[in-house]
Amino acid sequence: MARAFGEIAGHPPGSTFPDRRALSRAGVHRPTQHGISGSQTEGADSIVVSGGYEDDQDDGDLIVYTGAGGRDPATGRQIADQELSDQNLALALSATDGLPVRVIRGRGGNPARSPVTGYRYDGLFRVDDFWDEAGRSGFKVIRYRLEKLPAEPIEAIGPSVTTGTPGPAPRVNARTQRIVRNTAVTQRVKELHGHRCQVCGEVVETATGPYAEGAHVRPLGRPHDGPDVEANVLCLCPTDHVRLDYGGIVITDDLDVVNALTGVAIGPLRTIPGHRIDLAHVRYHRQVRTF
Amino acid sequence: MARAFGEIAGHPPGSTFPDRRALSRAGVHRPTQHGISGSQTEGADSIVVSGGYEDDQDDGDLIVYTGAGGRDPATGRQIADQELSDQNLALALSATDGLPVRVIRGRGGNPARSPVTGYRYDGLFRVDDFWDEAGRSGFKVIRYRLEKLPAEPIEAIGPSVTTGTPGPAPRVNARTQRIVRNTAVTQRVKELHGHRCQVCGEVVETATGPYAEGAHVRPLGRPHDGPDVEANVLCLCPTDHVRLDYGGIVITDDLDVVNALTGVAIGPLRTIPGHRIDLAHVRYHRQVRTF
Repeated sequence: MARAFGEIAGHPPGSTFPDRRALSRAGVHRPTQHGISGSQTEGADSIVVSGGYEDDQDDGDLIVYTGAGGRDPATGRQIADQELSDQNLALALSATDGLPVRVIRGRGGNPARSPVTGYRYDGLFRVDDFWDEAGRSGFKVIRYRLEKLPAEPIEAIGPSVTTGTPGPAPRVNARTQRIVRNTAVTQRVKELHGHRCQVCGEVVETATGPYAEGAHVRPLGRPHDGPDVEANVLCLCPTDHVRLDYGGIVITDDLDVVNALTGVAIGPLRTIPGHRIDLAHVRYHRQVRTF
Repeated sequence: MARAFGEIAGHPPGSTFPDRRALSRAGVHRPTQHGISGSQTEGADSIVVSGGYEDDQDDGDLIVYTGAGGRDPATGRQIADQELSDQNLALALSATDGLPVRVIRGRGGNPARSPVTGYRYDGLFRVDDFWDEAGRSGFKVIRYRLEKLPAEPIEAIGPSVTTGTPGPAPRVNARTQRIVRNTAVTQRVKELHGHRCQVCGEVVETATGPYAEGAHVRPLGRPHDGPDVEANVLCLCPTDHVRLDYGGIVITDDLDVVNALTGVAIGPLRTIPGHRIDLAHVRYHRQVRTF
């Protein structure tokens, strides 16, 4: 069965479970032992936070979670370094691919946040960072920062206004420049291309493996209403994604990449068998992104 | 006076104003004629939506707004193409730089959304797209998609779960991969470097001018608590920003860029007088991003 990301039907946030077997049967967190449910190809779909690691921090909507491995099974103490592989790599992929992670809290975690008995599903979080550090034990641990997602799907995110200066002219600290969407379709296109940019040919190597972005040629959402299908998605490096979205490059009907500002040809779009680009979307893009 | 982005103290959303002069005096929307308040170096801080353009659409939290210019002052009809310059370029910069825009609705817009008389400040929006198209008149107009920001500053954004397939395993469409922060400090660093990437030396050209990202070396936010200061920010292209954040590159104490996966030197970090990098932040980054 395909790994299930996001909410599990019939189990809304707040649902409780007496034990790990019940959690597993419900599909909310399938493994009965591991804290992280995931694979290093698909990413992680859920974690259990139950105070197993001395370095975990649970502040409610913000959780700093510790990866798996390196512990003495008898004492639970860290006795060796953790590695960015297996379940730990899966949870890092959830960060780079923007996958939502179900968080289940169990007895034994932060008493203010955790159920007194059994397990409770507490909603979807995003992994917004991962890193390694020396844990309290001195051994290397992989750490993840998870932030709770709003209950309602929204696209916009909020600004942080600096309020330090008196007077009527606060300079804002905007929190975001770009939102890069990741869908099952963009994921598939990236895999088809081995994460190689269709414009510059580069593969961006990171600690979690090759990184690319799926770029919708005709944008999603109103008023463009581009479809989320492979024929409307390019596999691009982050820089060429910015160029495509902000009027730096356009694609011709012959699938050549052209500098939209100068009209100068850059080179052919890299194509592969099995990934057809719909020229209607390329034309729409040219129409709206040439200023 | 510096342009004021974000909320204006004393004028929360819902504040009403009898006329444009009152709006201007309050600092909520300074120009008394123009629909867009902004400059092509700083971006736009506010717009007035009052049905001036036949192509505007106001669906409440989502506004498709039309740029300025090309109209007959007598009839208000579009009689010439609009250009991505002046106020129109300012509002596009608010998109690429992630600046929040105050939206003021006036009498004359969508009757379901607009005040019956005068003007009302309706909160902060983000410009999440801009493009050009043939307006109803047949002339080229610049269009902007604005989405309302949540009242509370939040960092996380929501996933969209595909619910088409029956059964317990919905595959999620995550809406985001990365959030790139833009602050007054990152803006300053980008300007110091002329938007040239400090790793690869590239300047990414777009329809709004050169594009770069300010990358915090020691990350902002808990538990890293990196400072939002110039000595902790690099000017990077989007691809090298991904590499820096996801363990692809690290910086040595000699300010050389090194492939974090292979240990191979890539070259010196491009530095300029007047932008000092604090080695403590570079060391912190090396420690947490080498897996």
